[in-house]
Amino acid sequence: VRDLLPRGERIEPRLAGAVADTLSTPGSLWRAQLAFAVARACALSEPDAEALATGVEAFHTASILFDDLPSMDDAATRRGRPCAHRAHGEAAAQLAALGFVHRGYARFWRAFEAAAVLDRRAAAALVEECLGLTGILDGQARDVAFGTGEVSPAEVVRVARGKSVTLLRLALELPAIVAGAPAEVRERLAALADAWGLAYQVLDDLEETTRPDGTDARLGRPNLALVAGRAAAEARVDAELVRAHALVAALAATLPALRAPFVRLSFRLAGLRAAVAPPAGRA
Amino acid sequence: VRDLLPRGERIEPRLAGAVADTLSTPGSLWRAQLAFAVARACALSEPDAEALATGVEAFHTASILFDDLPSMDDAATRRGRPCAHRAHGEAAAQLAALGFVHRGYARFWRAFEAAAVLDRRAAAALVEECLGLTGILDGQARDVAFGTGEVSPAEVVRVARGKSVTLLRLALELPAIVAGAPAEVRERLAALADAWGLAYQVLDDLEETTRPDGTDARLGRPNLALVAGRAAAEARVDAELVRAHALVAALAATLPALRAPFVRLSFRLAGLRAAVAPPAGRA
Repeated sequence: VRDLLPRGERIEPRLAGAVADTLSTPGSLWRAQLAFAVARACALSEPDAEALATGVEAFHTASILFDDLPSMDDAATRRGRPCAHRAHGEAAAQLAALGFVHRGYARFWRAFEAAAVLDRRAAAALVEECLGLTGILDGQARDVAFGTGEVSPAEVVRVARGKSVTLLRLALELPAIVAGAPAEVRERLAALADAWGLAYQVLDDLEETTRPDGTDARLGRPNLALVAGRAAAEARVDAELVRAHALVAALAATLPALRAPFVRLSFRLAGLRAAVAPPAGRA
Repeated sequence: VRDLLPRGERIEPRLAGAVADTLSTPGSLWRAQLAFAVARACALSEPDAEALATGVEAFHTASILFDDLPSMDDAATRRGRPCAHRAHGEAAAQLAALGFVHRGYARFWRAFEAAAVLDRRAAAALVEECLGLTGILDGQARDVAFGTGEVSPAEVVRVARGKSVTLLRLALELPAIVAGAPAEVRERLAALADAWGLAYQVLDDLEETTRPDGTDARLGRPNLALVAGRAAAEARVDAELVRAHALVAALAATLPALRAPFVRLSFRLAGLRAAVAPPAGRA
């Protein structure tokens, strides 16, 4: 899963540095692992599953490189190291991010190769829906603009859907589309992406407000725990985890190979939930 | 050719503004026209030809939005209007550019749909070669870094190949690949993209040095007329135009439908050449 980019020998040094640096801290790769698991459970070949998984990870990597730029979050560090734009310059970070976008498409194209023409068309439509102007780009724009317009729980959820759910749909729903899975399976995977994506984002919001160096409040960032209150944010997480639980059970009944990886992620989210605050029932 | 993007109704206002503004000044669309002409000459359907043409234009549009950003050229105006990042903010301009990238892929995917699997694979490889880290991204990185490393005519030509030739290869070579044209035709179109792309870029360099407000000299930009001298730059243009002339003749003999659009672009380049300085023969 790690060979996202070829080591170009004659690439301009700062651009090559930004790419190599980013590749050296790959993160936990849980989106890629989910994509691989769904693809294999839906009977895609191992090379196709790997192409989908690396494609998802490439787009995720591009999105965090863009997010960290001065015009967006202006972040200083990522995964314990200086951000690419701080170490290699803004232009190099931006061009590296585009390199990951193009790599993502190349991997996806490869994974779609053997699919039926209508499945390929549906897959391409989902990719643009998730990554284009109605998807992650709208989420990032709303994130940057937050505070200049509507400040409401609904707008915070819109940002979370745009930024977190879109990438999870590529990990969960896209492999099923490419494999020509039944509509019921695809819809459940889309709903699961929504539930997990929102739960994950709101857990991140809750965790951020407990940190002494948390900056969301100071910078007026979209954070459900700040905009709706901690109790409402915790209730939303719990509702999404309950929704996810039912979807995992239904999907595991149809595709037993999904049980282990899905339960693993459920445990991970439950652990984050417990770390943030005791669930309402136990309080 | 103008409906590059859907008018998203609920897209974040600054992002929507940057997209709408960019679409309102579409430029001369000569790359799109070339792509359409080659696609039709190679017997692709009209919808497929249009998809390739709009895809090429979308990627070209994305590249100029990125080029104009503060971290790159920091341009003030484009096509007679304030640049997108000046009018709508840097984040919106960046996200709009990404919207054009994703739109470009959606159009290309559509055009590749009916092609044979090996042609689709070759097409996808060319797209990443031209747009990825070995293509336009390397050209843009070298453009930004110019002056910090090697300052030579060879490096200036490398930048021009990266920035201008790559997009022309998508306009000229890609439609032929998608159509499954013979290798000879594809190779001539690739060579023509090289000749025209270099001629066009060096003509731009020559023109820039004659303008009183030309900034290439002051900013140390890669400009062949400055690095190699005007005479050498003019000689290079003439050599590329001679090379292009022979390729146009050979291609028009095989695909007569290409004669008219190719001769039209040849005249345009000859006009630019005459405006810059009298050809060496007449001096």
